[in-house]
Amino acid sequence: MLQNYKLFLSYDGTDYHGWQRQPKKRTIQGTLENALEEILRKKTSLIGAGRTDAGVHASGQVAHFKTKTSMKEDEIFRALNSVLPRDIRVNYLSIAQADFHARKSAKSKIYQYRILNARDASPFLIRYTLHWASPIDVESMKKAAPIFIRKHDFTPFSSNRLLHPVREITLSEIRKKGKEIVYTVEANGFLRYMVRTIVGTLLEIGRGKITPEEIDEIFKEGKRSQAGPTAPARGLCLIKVNY
Amino acid sequence: MLQNYKLFLSYDGTDYHGWQRQPKKRTIQGTLENALEEILRKKTSLIGAGRTDAGVHASGQVAHFKTKTSMKEDEIFRALNSVLPRDIRVNYLSIAQADFHARKSAKSKIYQYRILNARDASPFLIRYTLHWASPIDVESMKKAAPIFIRKHDFTPFSSNRLLHPVREITLSEIRKKGKEIVYTVEANGFLRYMVRTIVGTLLEIGRGKITPEEIDEIFKEGKRSQAGPTAPARGLCLIKVNY
Repeated sequence: MLQNYKLFLSYDGTDYHGWQRQPKKRTIQGTLENALEEILRKKTSLIGAGRTDAGVHASGQVAHFKTKTSMKEDEIFRALNSVLPRDIRVNYLSIAQADFHARKSAKSKIYQYRILNARDASPFLIRYTLHWASPIDVESMKKAAPIFIRKHDFTPFSSNRLLHPVREITLSEIRKKGKEIVYTVEANGFLRYMVRTIVGTLLEIGRGKITPEEIDEIFKEGKRSQAGPTAPARGLCLIKVNY
Repeated sequence: MLQNYKLFLSYDGTDYHGWQRQPKKRTIQGTLENALEEILRKKTSLIGAGRTDAGVHASGQVAHFKTKTSMKEDEIFRALNSVLPRDIRVNYLSIAQADFHARKSAKSKIYQYRILNARDASPFLIRYTLHWASPIDVESMKKAAPIFIRKHDFTPFSSNRLLHPVREITLSEIRKKGKEIVYTVEANGFLRYMVRTIVGTLLEIGRGKITPEEIDEIFKEGKRSQAGPTAPARGLCLIKVNY
């Protein structure tokens, strides 16, 4: 019987060209599908909840695949982890409802962006944080973050134009954790580069280049050029998918 | 005037063939000496407190070099960090006493070894921890660790034989930090692979293969074969040098 399997995944995206399978490029999806093929001895396609970009990490990615096999869940789980490179880990695997779809069934996703605000960069955090050496006004970033909580066309905070660009952000907050500034955002979906452009905009606010009041303006005008630059991929991590 | 400069360094050793300069290999010392040459426009040799092995990290390495330059300390500091790859950082640089020698003046060094004791490996910790999936008896490891506090010939816990193999360990402890087992050790000097062999031995104790009581036996017999295997480099980090 064809079974539907659900996986929880974590990966260090530094050495990958993003989630989506691409010919001749090392991607997360491609690496996982190759591992599945090796174990199940047939081509198997895997669908992820979020198509993370090159260099973006995940600690709570969810994916599903369908197959007919005599292997037990725990066997597949172990076999996958033994075949996969160590920077991709399956944290959990189980049989799912036949209609479970990692992307379509997802109600919301939570991303986190880490900024190391210290004079010295740490060689142990360069893969996972944006290093910001100058002082920055964290208080105004904290104040500005919740302004993004809305259901709206997020085109000015994205790199491309979609036919249906309305997304709803339900959580958007900045916290200071030691030397790190951590941005957490939850939405029912994200446009391309949306989190990284919001982070770039929050950094402009922290630098005093954009005022929190101007965010409404940017939403109204709808121009990408008014928002901040796209923050680098390495600070970003998909931490949870809600169903 | 020839000045003596002291540096505090941190680095991710994963992509390096250890500290010591070697022809045609990418090493920490070699990379730093090349950076100094680029900045000072003359060959400059740099001496480190500890010659970390391939894959070993440092958050508190100390080094010194001598040069005659019109550049201020802060200029050298900035120039070095802008020239160095991001996985090596200079955290501090200052003029030192003329007779300061990073290795010879050191009174003791502190190393830390991190073991991730959890079913799942974390892709974010693979460079910095040894993953140990099975349950392990941390209590007996905690009990055994202080037995290494002694002034003794540490040859059975090393990979080579030296003419003067006596070292003094003054701190040796195991702590549990969340899912991590962290070993911290301080000594006036370390033989080759000494920390990693002690860690390998502590893991054998945790697995019940060696009893804490047998450690004295190993010191007495003096045979490398009785100690545990050498733990992998990636869990090890030089965290402090005391002067």
